[in-house]
Amino acid sequence: MSLPEPTTQPGALYLGEIREQPAALRRLLEHRADYERVAAAAPPGLIRMVGHGSSDNAASYGVYAFGLLAGRTAIRDSISLTVYYSAPIDLAHSTVVALSQSGRTPDVLEYVTRARRQGAYTIAVTNDPGSALAEAADAVLPLAAGAEHAVAATKTYLTQLAALVLLAAELAGRGDEIAAGLEQTADDLERHLPLLERATASIAVPFASVGRMFVIGRGPEFATARETALKLLETCQIAAEPLTATDLAHGPVAALDPLFPVWAVATEDESLEVVVEAAARVREAGATLIATGPAAEAIADAQYRLPVPKPAEPLLAPLLSVVPGQLFAGAVARAKGLDPDRPRGLSKVTLAR
Amino acid sequence: MSLPEPTTQPGALYLGEIREQPAALRRLLEHRADYERVAAAAPPGLIRMVGHGSSDNAASYGVYAFGLLAGRTAIRDSISLTVYYSAPIDLAHSTVVALSQSGRTPDVLEYVTRARRQGAYTIAVTNDPGSALAEAADAVLPLAAGAEHAVAATKTYLTQLAALVLLAAELAGRGDEIAAGLEQTADDLERHLPLLERATASIAVPFASVGRMFVIGRGPEFATARETALKLLETCQIAAEPLTATDLAHGPVAALDPLFPVWAVATEDESLEVVVEAAARVREAGATLIATGPAAEAIADAQYRLPVPKPAEPLLAPLLSVVPGQLFAGAVARAKGLDPDRPRGLSKVTLAR
Repeated sequence: MSLPEPTTQPGALYLGEIREQPAALRRLLEHRADYERVAAAAPPGLIRMVGHGSSDNAASYGVYAFGLLAGRTAIRDSISLTVYYSAPIDLAHSTVVALSQSGRTPDVLEYVTRARRQGAYTIAVTNDPGSALAEAADAVLPLAAGAEHAVAATKTYLTQLAALVLLAAELAGRGDEIAAGLEQTADDLERHLPLLERATASIAVPFASVGRMFVIGRGPEFATARETALKLLETCQIAAEPLTATDLAHGPVAALDPLFPVWAVATEDESLEVVVEAAARVREAGATLIATGPAAEAIADAQYRLPVPKPAEPLLAPLLSVVPGQLFAGAVARAKGLDPDRPRGLSKVTLAR
Repeated sequence: MSLPEPTTQPGALYLGEIREQPAALRRLLEHRADYERVAAAAPPGLIRMVGHGSSDNAASYGVYAFGLLAGRTAIRDSISLTVYYSAPIDLAHSTVVALSQSGRTPDVLEYVTRARRQGAYTIAVTNDPGSALAEAADAVLPLAAGAEHAVAATKTYLTQLAALVLLAAELAGRGDEIAAGLEQTADDLERHLPLLERATASIAVPFASVGRMFVIGRGPEFATARETALKLLETCQIAAEPLTATDLAHGPVAALDPLFPVWAVATEDESLEVVVEAAARVREAGATLIATGPAAEAIADAQYRLPVPKPAEPLLAPLLSVVPGQLFAGAVARAKGLDPDRPRGLSKVTLAR
């Protein structure tokens, strides 16, 4: 199979950055000492994550990483309550984890500034340690993903997941174990990427006429569902909606029909049974089903399967499971004649409120 | 205009319950003493809301009601972290607000049981004070909406909003003011309902061919965006995705085209400017725009406007703004030849996990 050459083919930037993900992960791990130091400085109590777009999707993973590894309640906090509504909420005694690839997202910056003034311990997780956000926070955790040029984030999303799980692991005194798991994830991903590129390219064409999809996942993989849906929206103009397996049963299942494909992320953890049940409901409705994740084989009657390797730890699965979605979105965009490097109406740094 | 007769026309149950909403609100207010008593018993600290579907949409409103009125951090907590993953999170010292119309949602019941055992103060907000959930919790706050027979929730959603804002108001010592505001909301809604029924019926037909929509709102009205999108999914099989105005700019705007209508909820509060800017971006993309909410007139170039009355307090706007969405979903369903009372694949009490 011939793959697009960088700088010449539509989507070359986007695909190039997907391929860089194993290297980006390894670069982040070189900064592990920063993660140890920041974990040691962070107070106990609520962890408030803030970010938009892919960064907010990564925060969905953070809810599980901090909860499962460190027994901590971590929330995707409302930025608008503090920044636009000036609600009288006491942010002191909490840890703020601000996620912004560019470090320039205006209301994330404003949130951090206000939270720090109130006495929160504020951490900037960013790809630009010289950014305004890094300046404004008490501490900086670098993504070290290297400059990201494609508008649709890939390697900064993956490194955000790594940053959150590594910080959670350091809080729990399990940094060695998770750092080793992340090393293995980089290796597994590198080995598996060519296969996934071929597999996604080979199934993309029939989806060129698709206008809408659901993407289901649960637990840590809900972040994968959200990020996969966002890639489909950004790069192929598919109205893709992320749902937990349970959400699907509470209403949206009514909208399914044979023209409405569903992407299911299946992983080997406590959520698997629920996802398998939801997938069965999807097939009963006659919808096309694409199964991915380390437990893709458990989705018995999927028309398409894009499995990823088993992770070192179940919690690390989302770092692998998102990659088929990234690649599929790029492949469908090309099949539609769209350029994934030039999503309509978007720019790399979103300064919109 | 002729309206469907109860029990004979498609959607008669659904429409009947939309019309009952002012009466349901007034019945809830008869239970105000329960809300005062429960507010007095609730500990300080984090408020953890749990629910699925419309109940989870109501919880999105609760984030703002508790934050703005009482300066409290209220979160839509992860049910799966506790119930499926048994994460070692300490739920003691928090207040749990469990939202379930039927009081029978299995994992909400399980969450409350575990949280109470750990020492949380647990409150069941339910339409059935004799339900298992009511039994399991420390305290019960009745919705008093009367039996809801339509599968797609309407009057229990509206009363859930009222329950959350009234509880928040009692926590803040502002119960009298908000209770009076809710009385006025019931009156305004009653007066305005016939007009809204006619207005939504008159614009529904061109939307019968629509397959996908975005619904945007911000702040307290994000709950309205979520609930409107869910009604469109359940009753008309439209893939409707709720987005904050900011989310839209971070990716999904790329998917817009003239065949992709956007429903915008505009309210007179600190979020209005952001929603107006997002609406302008929607129009630039050539998409059809429907504006609703108390500030619908502020969306300058909307093709359709469905304004609602100004609320007594800006925070009460979502109790009015959701009604055009409920009615529009029913009207589009009928225009499509679907029966809003019989959504495909759904039943009234969702026991699915």
